[in-house]
Amino acid sequence: MRYSVFAGGKRLRPILVLAAAEAAGDPAKAAGGGPESLLPAACAVELIHTYSLIHDDLPAFDDDDLRRGKPTSHKVFGEPQAILTGDALQSAAFSLLAGAARDTDAPGPWIDALVELAAAAGSVGMAAGQWLDIEAEGQPIDMVSLEALHAAKTGALLTACVRIGALLAGADDATLERLRAYGRAVCLAFQIVDDILDVEGSVENLGKLPGVDADRDKATYPGLLGLDGARSEARRLRDLALRQIEPLGASARPLALIANFIVDRSQ
Amino acid sequence: MRYSVFAGGKRLRPILVLAAAEAAGDPAKAAGGGPESLLPAACAVELIHTYSLIHDDLPAFDDDDLRRGKPTSHKVFGEPQAILTGDALQSAAFSLLAGAARDTDAPGPWIDALVELAAAAGSVGMAAGQWLDIEAEGQPIDMVSLEALHAAKTGALLTACVRIGALLAGADDATLERLRAYGRAVCLAFQIVDDILDVEGSVENLGKLPGVDADRDKATYPGLLGLDGARSEARRLRDLALRQIEPLGASARPLALIANFIVDRSQ
Repeated sequence: MRYSVFAGGKRLRPILVLAAAEAAGDPAKAAGGGPESLLPAACAVELIHTYSLIHDDLPAFDDDDLRRGKPTSHKVFGEPQAILTGDALQSAAFSLLAGAARDTDAPGPWIDALVELAAAAGSVGMAAGQWLDIEAEGQPIDMVSLEALHAAKTGALLTACVRIGALLAGADDATLERLRAYGRAVCLAFQIVDDILDVEGSVENLGKLPGVDADRDKATYPGLLGLDGARSEARRLRDLALRQIEPLGASARPLALIANFIVDRSQ
Repeated sequence: MRYSVFAGGKRLRPILVLAAAEAAGDPAKAAGGGPESLLPAACAVELIHTYSLIHDDLPAFDDDDLRRGKPTSHKVFGEPQAILTGDALQSAAFSLLAGAARDTDAPGPWIDALVELAAAAGSVGMAAGQWLDIEAEGQPIDMVSLEALHAAKTGALLTACVRIGALLAGADDATLERLRAYGRAVCLAFQIVDDILDVEGSVENLGKLPGVDADRDKATYPGLLGLDGARSEARRLRDLALRQIEPLGASARPLALIANFIVDRSQ
């Protein structure tokens, strides 16, 4: 568990939790302490993400040897051990949120966060997206189906990060809806850029072997839209996300930086 | 998920939740409704159990073809699909408990149940036990290590069932401690009888091929104590469990029946 969690990574999901809380209201008030009281939520989403990477790298899935520039979990510890490591990381994520709910006088937002995370990880979220991804391999896929696949596979968890941060900061319904729309757009942009980097990237920047998805006949945005079309679609989604959070003012600046980072990143 | 959850099984864990609640106090009061208000907890523990069976049957683990008399999940749906099915069942378990916590005015006991279940499933519970089990394969093992292995692999979840039922029924500390001791003893008895049945059993009764664990050089109680020694150890633990719950009176009768069933069962 430590090996994979501390192998690096962008920590995009925890940062989204913290930035959404900052944009939505007063993180210190609703979560029952300073901004550091949000850390159980920030860590929980990273544990779920790490578990999904470990399982996604397994021989039964993508059979990847490298992740974040280091040998994958099953390469180091063995296949059953990697499956168990992912399983235990999922439990640990819920353990963190449940512990935070237990240790506060106002557990309501933490319970909402638990509901969000369990839905985002499970059979209506990330796990469903992984399943669709397996079924789509080697099949022709249209734009609508590809968006549905990514909305589940990576979008559900990324959107949950934004919503969990907002819920813990006591956001009102209108702000929650703005952040949800921001989350949806940023998630799709994220996936498009992932696909572009997979075509363009080098092993140094990605920490994994580039071109693997295309080799495995996976549906990708550059495959559907061309490289230039994919790049302009990512920018369009970024601008849509920025418009959503503009009314939130200066407190939404970290979210704006994240949207720009996602489209401009090289890894 | 439906295929494996509704493939049958003894439903021992949900029954333990309900029986412990009955033994510990007033299930209707603390869980905020009739005894049926305990069902999210009863179902959650069965979902965790089912997920663990699906992963345990995978080619990377025991590579079993049959479970509960039917082809295992990976045989029917494929290996990555079976991994995902287990992953999503774990999420679903926490989703049920979180939903129950959200839908009540007194979420405290449900949050305690979430804390219990996350700990029992994860790296200090079931997943740790599975890991120990892999590491122990083909190695000589002594009685103390074997008990530690089973206390984690099956004991943590069974004990959590008893404690979750008791917590939701508002048990006092003394009753919780009695039920914890009952749980520990019954769990070990359960595993010993599992090992005995694996040596003695027939494919009709077990729903899986008998003798598989011994063939794979797994540490077993009959291997350490002999068949007669293992049988008398199971009875000793049953009696110890019964003594713990005796002071609870008639409301603990279902727990007593379960302890007897566990030792006398033929499947």
